[in-house]
Amino acid sequence: MSFIERIQQAVPEGLGVCVGLDPIVERMPPCFKTASEPLYSFNAAIIEATFEAAVAYKPNLAFYERYGASGWEQLAKTVKAVPEGKIVILDCKRGDIGSTSATYAEAMFHQLGADAVTVSPYLGSDSLSPFLEETEKGAFVLALTSNPGGAEVQELKADGMPVYLHIIDLCRRLNKNRNVGLVVGATRPEHWPRVLEAAGDLPLLIPGVGAQGGDPVALRRLLQGYPAPAFVNSSRAIIFASRGDDFADAARIAAFKLKEELVG
Amino acid sequence: MSFIERIQQAVPEGLGVCVGLDPIVERMPPCFKTASEPLYSFNAAIIEATFEAAVAYKPNLAFYERYGASGWEQLAKTVKAVPEGKIVILDCKRGDIGSTSATYAEAMFHQLGADAVTVSPYLGSDSLSPFLEETEKGAFVLALTSNPGGAEVQELKADGMPVYLHIIDLCRRLNKNRNVGLVVGATRPEHWPRVLEAAGDLPLLIPGVGAQGGDPVALRRLLQGYPAPAFVNSSRAIIFASRGDDFADAARIAAFKLKEELVG
Repeated sequence: MSFIERIQQAVPEGLGVCVGLDPIVERMPPCFKTASEPLYSFNAAIIEATFEAAVAYKPNLAFYERYGASGWEQLAKTVKAVPEGKIVILDCKRGDIGSTSATYAEAMFHQLGADAVTVSPYLGSDSLSPFLEETEKGAFVLALTSNPGGAEVQELKADGMPVYLHIIDLCRRLNKNRNVGLVVGATRPEHWPRVLEAAGDLPLLIPGVGAQGGDPVALRRLLQGYPAPAFVNSSRAIIFASRGDDFADAARIAAFKLKEELVG
Repeated sequence: MSFIERIQQAVPEGLGVCVGLDPIVERMPPCFKTASEPLYSFNAAIIEATFEAAVAYKPNLAFYERYGASGWEQLAKTVKAVPEGKIVILDCKRGDIGSTSATYAEAMFHQLGADAVTVSPYLGSDSLSPFLEETEKGAFVLALTSNPGGAEVQELKADGMPVYLHIIDLCRRLNKNRNVGLVVGATRPEHWPRVLEAAGDLPLLIPGVGAQGGDPVALRRLLQGYPAPAFVNSSRAIIFASRGDDFADAARIAAFKLKEELVG
């Protein structure tokens, strides 16, 4: 099945909850601190608790790399633990010269088994294309990120147009296999009208709700009628909703609450 | 010892050879294809053969991630195999929101033991700062990359100035600990005069000689009198100089030839 068909099927309401799997052992309930594979065990419990509310899972690789080879192993097991039909987006923000990007694509899509990745556009089209060659895999390109510093680069104006709109144009040109998406932060709503106008029908991955402060209800209004699937990610506000033994229940409640705010 | 002191000591001539450790099992001599840790064994042989010519080693993480947890393990062993006094630059091109960049910095500097990393600037200063907090560690920020697509983003003109010069300005502002460097590709010599004028005294990491076609002799002329250390990287042209049993000798010869071209 092609990437666009898979995500359309995964997100029938057009807008869905993505759970950011960014595990930090120090913030987990005490029982995980002595586990042999704390990242994986914690993630497995979070996936089990949230899969009825979520359409996608997004592990950020930093939180696994911190634990070296063991972290990588636990990431691979986490990807396998995601139920069929849900989308696994590896948030790796890679991007390198063409031959190296091709090697990263192999690592993410085949060694780890991701459905999609996030990629950074600073090296231009030949750094992005290797992630787009397989029609059943996709890439979300950083356009407008959720952090304050993003503006320093992304809002520079070139030919009267901010850099992020140049990136969106580039993404549309690269979208021959209908497997290019955009990362657009929920924390910068003043840019959304221009983003949505430029984005055409590119799928969206939206970080920044939850701990970062983006408003899901405002997002819902903005995205009414948008013609492609949008994944709204929340990490800390779901996975660390409680640090006690009720963490799984709390995660489930937080994920359903976000779903309710997004699709009612 | 501070980062700037360490690299000044490592590169007494001002300009030095960096060997890119980007191992590909399929391109190694046959004896490695059945080794239990081919990446590490091959790298150890390359380091042993080249350390008298080289001042730094630069593993690109894609080539290890392709092999999963085992690749990560072999990368950690590779870092440990680099002799004291040589600089290990992990070419990871990371860059994320602040809290995540801090986690990447921990992975690269402490889990893997790098002296320096490469980072991608698309997310702005708060994505870069976490890599610059420790005075004995450094980060080379992508400014002007060696691939053809780089121009699509890096040469966009904002306020009459290409994006890469905005990035260089940002790097100079972030250089409080004297541990910020720039990645500037050898393949785009027409931009070098402007880069060097803007760069002040930031150290340079220069990819693109060797297989990518950049000219080391031209580089040498351009960098005459430049006040900070410059690492000139070659990967494939050194490590795969021969694919036969003489690969180590061939690598040694290629590394010394590059050194000769750079510092005579």
